[in-house]
Amino acid sequence: MTPEQKAEIEAQRAQSFVTRRATVPALEEILFEAIPVLDHGFIRVVDYMGDDGAVVQAARVSYGKGTKKVREDAGLIAYLMRHRHSTPFEMCEIKFHVKLPIFVARQWIRHRTANVNEYSARYSLLDREFYIPKPEHLAAQSSSNRQGRGDVLPPDQAAKVMKLLRDDSERAYDHYLEMLGTGEERAEEDRGLAASAEEVAVTGLARELARMNLSLNFYTQWYWKTDLHNLMHFLSLRADAHAQYEIRVYAEAMVDVLKRWVPATYEAFLNYRQGGAYLSAKALAVVKGLLDGKPLSREESGLSAREWSEVMATLGRDK
Amino acid sequence: MTPEQKAEIEAQRAQSFVTRRATVPALEEILFEAIPVLDHGFIRVVDYMGDDGAVVQAARVSYGKGTKKVREDAGLIAYLMRHRHSTPFEMCEIKFHVKLPIFVARQWIRHRTANVNEYSARYSLLDREFYIPKPEHLAAQSSSNRQGRGDVLPPDQAAKVMKLLRDDSERAYDHYLEMLGTGEERAEEDRGLAASAEEVAVTGLARELARMNLSLNFYTQWYWKTDLHNLMHFLSLRADAHAQYEIRVYAEAMVDVLKRWVPATYEAFLNYRQGGAYLSAKALAVVKGLLDGKPLSREESGLSAREWSEVMATLGRDK
Amino acid sequence: MTPEQKAEIEAQRAQSFVTRRATVPALEEILFEAIPVLDHGFIRVVDYMGDDGAVVQAARVSYGKGTKKVREDAGLIAYLMRHRHSTPFEMCEIKFHVKLPIFVARQWIRHRTANVNEYSARYSLLDREFYIPKPEHLAAQSSSNRQGRGDVLPPDQAAKVMKLLRDDSERAYDHYLEMLGTGEERAEEDRGLAASAEEVAVTGLARELARMNLSLNFYTQWYWKTDLHNLMHFLSLRADAHAQYEIRVYAEAMVDVLKRWVPATYEAFLNYRQGGAYLSAKALAVVKGLLDGKPLSREESGLSAREWSEVMATLGRDK
Amino acid sequence: MTPEQKAEIEAQRAQSFVTRRATVPALEEILFEAIPVLDHGFIRVVDYMGDDGAVVQAARVSYGKGTKKVREDAGLIAYLMRHRHSTPFEMCEIKFHVKLPIFVARQWIRHRTANVNEYSARYSLLDREFYIPKPEHLAAQSSSNRQGRGDVLPPDQAAKVMKLLRDDSERAYDHYLEMLGTGEERAEEDRGLAASAEEVAVTGLARELARMNLSLNFYTQWYWKTDLHNLMHFLSLRADAHAQYEIRVYAEAMVDVLKRWVPATYEAFLNYRQGGAYLSAKALAVVKGLLDGKPLSREESGLSAREWSEVMATLGRDK
Repeated sequence: MTPEQKAEIEAQRAQSFVTRRATVPALEEILFEAIPVLDHGFIRVVDYMGDDGAVVQAARVSYGKGTKKVREDAGLIAYLMRHRHSTPFEMCEIKFHVKLPIFVARQWIRHRTANVNEYSARYSLLDREFYIPKPEHLAAQSSSNRQGRGDVLPPDQAAKVMKLLRDDSERAYDHYLEMLGTGEERAEEDRGLAASAEEVAVTGLARELARMNLSLNFYTQWYWKTDLHNLMHFLSLRADAHAQYEIRVYAEAMVDVLKRWVPATYEAFLNYRQGGAYLSAKALAVVKGLLDGKPLSREESGLSAREWSEVMATLGRDK
Repeated sequence: MTPEQKAEIEAQRAQSFVTRRATVPALEEILFEAIPVLDHGFIRVVDYMGDDGAVVQAARVSYGKGTKKVREDAGLIAYLMRHRHSTPFEMCEIKFHVKLPIFVARQWIRHRTANVNEYSARYSLLDREFYIPKPEHLAAQSSSNRQGRGDVLPPDQAAKVMKLLRDDSERAYDHYLEMLGTGEERAEEDRGLAASAEEVAVTGLARELARMNLSLNFYTQWYWKTDLHNLMHFLSLRADAHAQYEIRVYAEAMVDVLKRWVPATYEAFLNYRQGGAYLSAKALAVVKGLLDGKPLSREESGLSAREWSEVMATLGRDK
Repeated sequence: MTPEQKAEIEAQRAQSFVTRRATVPALEEILFEAIPVLDHGFIRVVDYMGDDGAVVQAARVSYGKGTKKVREDAGLIAYLMRHRHSTPFEMCEIKFHVKLPIFVARQWIRHRTANVNEYSARYSLLDREFYIPKPEHLAAQSSSNRQGRGDVLPPDQAAKVMKLLRDDSERAYDHYLEMLGTGEERAEEDRGLAASAEEVAVTGLARELARMNLSLNFYTQWYWKTDLHNLMHFLSLRADAHAQYEIRVYAEAMVDVLKRWVPATYEAFLNYRQGGAYLSAKALAVVKGLLDGKPLSREESGLSAREWSEVMATLGRDK
Repeated sequence: MTPEQKAEIEAQRAQSFVTRRATVPALEEILFEAIPVLDHGFIRVVDYMGDDGAVVQAARVSYGKGTKKVREDAGLIAYLMRHRHSTPFEMCEIKFHVKLPIFVARQWIRHRTANVNEYSARYSLLDREFYIPKPEHLAAQSSSNRQGRGDVLPPDQAAKVMKLLRDDSERAYDHYLEMLGTGEERAEEDRGLAASAEEVAVTGLARELARMNLSLNFYTQWYWKTDLHNLMHFLSLRADAHAQYEIRVYAEAMVDVLKRWVPATYEAFLNYRQGGAYLSAKALAVVKGLLDGKPLSREESGLSAREWSEVMATLGRDK
């Protein structure tokens, strides 16, 4: 982040207004602050609307605050979450400024019930910022899961991968600048290459074209706004162990924000979205069989080997 | 509104918090206040997020406020509106509490990009409140427009209609209470009817069933939340002359809220959404013909008689 | 349904075209047919797109059919459903024509991810058709559930309720016609009332106004189109025991359609949406305690009395 | 496209089923066929639902086909389009298989009201296919429009850009394979580099990581499904002169599909969406002034210089 950007953030944090709206001090505390994620990314809460009380108020369609005792409100929130009454949670809204690698942005944008303004590389230049994973996150393809990671690569292989990624990213960016004709690109000599005498200087390719030379690990940024219900849906999928590490760390940072913003909803989220599990009709029959002392065999259960082991893991019987 | 409800609203209005968020004093002024619409309805702004500056900030994906001079910001907002760059307007959000007749609610809910919590008549009792139009709004079916109104009814007919509506509504509500077995319904004698000796008292029909006896002019209420872009889409359709009067008055009250909330966006809305007109390719050819002194006849234009007169009205040439 | 309407349906059913598109004979069989629901309602499938194979094809982003052996395809569909990979199910679409009471329509329309064209009472006349529940569906308010039904009313009370509903509906419709000045309303004498000499005849109130006198049990109709994922979401909520009976019967009729249309998806729906249950983190701890022979007391579990009994019911331990 | 893929498409085209559904022969003709776009991309219609008649049928909420004479139906469709009654157009659906560069996919996905299944580079390998613009599409940044293109680059600069893009893409793909350890990457010697003795072979980085080395001009593919209303919204924005060339060519190919599929709707689209123009309140005042022989100066009009010239261009008075 540039000093100007930091100063802009500080200027916003220094502001203070008077409002009649529901206000959450624990969230105000970190408002506008950049919470670092990955090597160059961040999330920043830039605005919010509502709190736990707003959920309760909407559920009751009340004229005033609509909140009662803290315990009663938490009970109502748990009830709404348990019975998937999602509309009261849609009554709160939050807006983030996020800096993230493009391949992460491509997963993220699949969540359609959100508002987005992305930094336009048709209009402006992108910075020389790209994601290089740390060695401990460079894992081999999983042998059991076609879309997951397995063991970490040995150090020499990790080093090789990091060098390939870094060199290609640097070169891509150099050529991006060169095509744009900004005059800011590094000379070939500086890049350890023999200068080519006959070099043609590009006087300025359109930005909307030049950007296509950048790779998917380059950072982009956007304003992303969603309601509390859809935020939790996003988090339940992306803060999950099956999500790719690089988007999971964003989701985890946002779970911390959730905790500050709406503590009662957060508790219900942990209990009813993150920590629990859906048992299919067949899995439920397995559980009942176990409880009745008449355990079903896998064959009797009708579960596939894979699902069987998933269910056993859920029940803590996989040791 | 009951004294308790008024007190609840006053209690909320008396609150005051400190926030770092963008705050709009002109909107804070009316926050929570019930703005009357029709005979028993209202709209109340109960929360909001963002201001004109938030539109600009999102369009620039800025780190700080992102706003420049007021004139520059208004220029950017006009540009965004003119070119239908709608996403920055989605970055502001507003939440209303609305009390409205059910037949109005049925039109309103067709706007799907919004969040809604409606008062549940499965769960709670509805009040004895129904909409009776004023005589000046009781119009005959339009002869030219199959879904519009024409001339106002003569006074005796208007009185007749009002009496029919009122009597049926009162009776529907009496029977609603009677089916619910609340003990609050008026005795038959009080309603000018002979008491029936063999009267059966219903001990309590389920609320989800009893409500079906109420007519579409009964009032319901909901929390309704949407973003600035979708709010303007709603207003452009519902504050329009073609909208039914009973929903238009709600939309008009909300246009006033728009003016308080985001004055620069409001100006752009007037110019680019409400006051202008879309000219089809054929209508544009008519305009060009007129400007070039080679006017097209209606036949040459390819316009239908109806569209021709619409275009002439748009051009102010219908006198 | 009028003879003309029946003839129109038969004419459509008699048609036959040749197509390269995925076609489902079991669904074609009932295409356009009105499946009766409640006393005057129905659902009719009027168009569809895709089949089980289309789910598989989209999941594989294949060039051809993308389907393999029936068993493999069913396995993939089950996998997608289990892991909530919803997008392939969005690739199938279905369109219904539905006739339903207005109060049911008001619940139904809350599902926003669907396309709807409703019969317009601003534009056209509604028919004299209203829903009167059968005695066996006239239940008292539930004592345990604030938004549900309890025991069936005694016969005399049921008869009373039915009479109130029917009389008020008939009268509302008579007055609707009278306000519209259609000349089709029944004379006062015919309705067992003394003719009033000074009767004022309304020459024609606008339809958009007159409709407000109708009660919520009147029938409306619409075209309703949604994708397979959102259809199942709708069905999982509305074919559920907690849903109001009057919407549940529509959902149940649509579950039968689901079975004809996409049998493999239907099987997965039964297993992963209808027959199973979500166990919260706390409920899961209860299950593990039971399995380990170290049962938690309700207090230790942290579950409320209500949730505890829900969990015990799920586990079949409530006898 | 591989021979297998071509064979799969041919197999689908060879199929033929009998259906009662609305069928469009002109669209069936090209069903499943890959229509080439850019150097390696295509669009293919893989399914559809409804036709012009379905729009009419939904607008009339009819029991049968609901269509009348062709001319009357076209008139109704034009009326619906003119008055922005969009819901009947939502009753038709179309599904495409699209192959497109990632930077185009990133613009495209911003249209949220659509269903998408994208080829997963977490799960499968991407092909060595990347977009290289033709020289005639390599334009300089526009001097007047910050997000557009200006003049075409001189041939030597174009050649330079194409070489940079091609070399970087080839290298990125080589390294992608190398990181994946597929054993399919070209040896260093083959790429004109000195073999490095100490070369470390990566045994298999996870696909979800390796993909980040690919640049934004690589091709991806997806199934994309939307309704007719949202398709036209997409086309009105993306087949527009302001859209980036590389997405515009996809939109233009889809406009041709629209013409085959729903010819009456297509005519209305040309007249009311593509060929016309929105005149703001201020622009309308300018037009009225011109028609009345009392032209407003730009200052009097309140239009900015830019908007003034846009309006004059719309009126054909910019020569």
